Amino acid sequence: MSEKKIGGAGLRGQSAGETKLCTVGQSGSGLTYCGYDVADLAENSTFEEVAYLLFNGELPNQAQLDAYKAELHAMRDLPQALKEVLERIPADAHPMDVMRTGASFLGNVEPENDFSEQRTAANRLLAAFPAIMTYWYRYSHDGVKIDCVTEEESLGGHFLRLLNGEEPSAQHKRVMDVSLILYAEHEFNASTFTARVCASTLSDMFSCITGAIGTLRGPLHGGANEAAMDMILKFNSPEDAKEKMAGMLERKEKIMGFGHAIYRTSDPRNVVIKAWSEKLAQENGDTSLYDISVACEEFMWDTKKLFCNADFFHASTYNYMGIPTKLFTPIFVCSRLTGWAAHVMEQRDNNRIIRPSADYTGVEPRTVGPISER
Amino acid sequence: MSEKKIGGAGLRGQSAGETKLCTVGQSGSGLTYCGYDVADLAENSTFEEVAYLLFNGELPNQAQLDAYKAELHAMRDLPQALKEVLERIPADAHPMDVMRTGASFLGNVEPENDFSEQRTAANRLLAAFPAIMTYWYRYSHDGVKIDCVTEEESLGGHFLRLLNGEEPSAQHKRVMDVSLILYAEHEFNASTFTARVCASTLSDMFSCITGAIGTLRGPLHGGANEAAMDMILKFNSPEDAKEKMAGMLERKEKIMGFGHAIYRTSDPRNVVIKAWSEKLAQENGDTSLYDISVACEEFMWDTKKLFCNADFFHASTYNYMGIPTKLFTPIFVCSRLTGWAAHVMEQRDNNRIIRPSADYTGVEPRTVGPISER
Ligand SMILES: CC(C)(COP(=O)(O)OP(=O)(O)OC[C@H]1O[C@@H](n2cnc3c(N)ncnc32)[C@H](O)[C@@H]1OP(=O)(O)O)[C@@H](O)C(=O)NCCC(=O)NCCS
Ligand SMILES: CC(C)(COP(=O)(O)OP(=O)(O)OC[C@H]1O[C@@H](n2cnc3c(N)ncnc32)[C@H](O)[C@@H]1OP(=O)(O)O)[C@@H](O)C(=O)NCCC(=O)NCCS
Repeated sequence: MSEKKIGGAGLRGQSAGETKLCTVGQSGSGLTYCGYDVADLAENSTFEEVAYLLFNGELPNQAQLDAYKAELHAMRDLPQALKEVLERIPADAHPMDVMRTGASFLGNVEPENDFSEQRTAANRLLAAFPAIMTYWYRYSHDGVKIDCVTEEESLGGHFLRLLNGEEPSAQHKRVMDVSLILYAEHEFNASTFTARVCASTLSDMFSCITGAIGTLRGPLHGGANEAAMDMILKFNSPEDAKEKMAGMLERKEKIMGFGHAIYRTSDPRNVVIKAWSEKLAQENGDTSLYDISVACEEFMWDTKKLFCNADFFHASTYNYMGIPTKLFTPIFVCSRLTGWAAHVMEQRDNNRIIRPSADYTGVEPRTVGPISER
Repeated sequence: MSEKKIGGAGLRGQSAGETKLCTVGQSGSGLTYCGYDVADLAENSTFEEVAYLLFNGELPNQAQLDAYKAELHAMRDLPQALKEVLERIPADAHPMDVMRTGASFLGNVEPENDFSEQRTAANRLLAAFPAIMTYWYRYSHDGVKIDCVTEEESLGGHFLRLLNGEEPSAQHKRVMDVSLILYAEHEFNASTFTARVCASTLSDMFSCITGAIGTLRGPLHGGANEAAMDMILKFNSPEDAKEKMAGMLERKEKIMGFGHAIYRTSDPRNVVIKAWSEKLAQENGDTSLYDISVACEEFMWDTKKLFCNADFFHASTYNYMGIPTKLFTPIFVCSRLTGWAAHVMEQRDNNRIIRPSADYTGVEPRTVGPISER
């Protein structure tokens, strides 16, 4: 590895465009969607309202919300050909590869023919993702071909029901809803930026979303919640956690679920999801996962001034709900899709192809010699 | 549509990182790969040598080239599950959706487990793409399940043989080779930049390539060669071309295959592919397609000082070789994959997550009211 160049690397702090959708880390408010604080939305709205907000700029009234939920409801089932594709993906595949392939395949059989269909394409993906994820999961792991339609009212409840085959508790539905709200949108993060670069060539919605899924897959981005879970499960107690984390820091390993490209002292999503993690721990009776997580948080702040990002307490939260670790990042997809699609629409509305330059650090000009003399 | 903001839009002229792979539009040389002028490579090397160059920084000697070609040769066949997925994509699907899905699916069944496998993953995609494209094409259009392995020595020849089921002429093989060289690499263009953003989260090679394919699909980028062909076929004569183009400019339509984000007076790839288009026209006897293309070039320069980019004479060139228009952009994928993969490896070697900021232009902070009052 060559030496890391930090100044300006990763376009950090450079503006790459305009948005009406989101602020991250601006004074006064940690994170807003279309002007609303994310904590306010998590407390006082539902994920479907947030999706509507991101696609339309305003929260829906009751009639609009009802119509929107009915529209999404009617789009939940998967085409037979897509089910057959999912059946061909082995159980040991990376679930994000499954999501990426599911989104990409859907673009073949239900294409966005022109931009007038952009909302339909986005809503179709939003409604279909819970089934894409669980149809593959249940078939490859349990050999079951699940019915992809449920009568659950919310997408969060729909996902939990598809996964477990039984009605989720009201509490679990609410937690899933909050989680989907928290992950929905985050300005020019790497996956959203991918979606915008793709959109800037005037490509279709399925391409933009497929590319964003691939970007979210990386452990420095969406993959962090799974990595955090794997780590936490290796700790036997709060003391053990501190000891092992000290060793990781000494070996210069990155601790997943901590730090952020923009926030400097805290991630406003953490306080919300942490409170739910605590509530679920108490409900569960065994609070050790939560206690260990809190010990991690304290240790990282005390030693490195690094704070939990949205992913860290999502790990214990999802675990308490019985969600398999490998589905953590796919759930992130089900949520962030709303932000991605909203950014694609915004990019299209005022587009210029995103094509930066590079500093050349390679060899001087030279000429091709005959192969016999190389 | 809101008013277009030009200053700095699309990150134009802003450096987004470093590269040793390529210069575009720098003084003295129009386009270089690892220091070699693209025209020199198109004249004096083969596509496999260029792929080797991009992945290793140096052209191969004969032994290295032989070994590399043997490696690629052994990777040409497709897994049965992928064939079954391709059989489920209808004939009227967008061929770039097929390529995107093929790359994505392959990542499920032959994943890049860690970065030590990055060359294998890149070579696998390189060797498999001609078959992904033609297996779907021949099955969906002609109902034929083709054998995905041929004894053709070069990837270009392999593709032509898979497509037509017979040995291509030496001339056609050479033209395909030149075309693949010309398209192989182009610095931080939109699709390559997508691949780098994806790589910057430490995602896998298949995600990076899948995202890049989706970006290349757009008509402002790779899709331009197909759009140029469709346009040229509507012109009956050089005079008719000029007349119709004048109308398009008047209606402020973009003319595909002209203009460039970086080059200002010419695209160095054009002179090379234009010469081949002329040669094929003469071979064919009917030169009208070439003559019409030349008329387009003259007209655009005279009226708008816009010049042909790499895509414009690729249209007539491919057409003379009997390649269906819908496969033009997929061929671009088969070539540019080399540049994409080389950039992914370079990004990984000195990584920081690519996460720019945005200028907020949305509404002021507000609070969520009860739904009954909206
Ligand atoms: C999110 C992240 C990618 C931001 O990257 P960034 O903008 O390049 O990070 P910063 O510039 O703030 O990092 C400053 C320093 O803190 C270190 N650091 C940041 N996060 C760290 C972590 N989670 N563990 C250990 N060290 C960390 C960095 O390595 C860097 O040190 P260096 O200069 O020696 O390389 C980074 O914090 C990270 O990798 N976190 C873990 C993955 C994660 O949780 N991602 C989900 C984000 S929502
Ligand atoms: C390649 C391309 C996307 C570059 O975009 P860009 O960097 O934003 O282009 P520029 O800033 O040089 O454009 C300057 C002006 O020329 C116009 N222009 C550029 N290419 C044009 C074309 N092919 N036809 C008509 N007008 C064109 C632009 O619309 C712009 O006018 P405006 O200011 O009124 O909007 C653009 O030239 C284009 O769309 N070309 C056609 C598609 C194509 O062939 N793509 C393949 C590229 S290899």
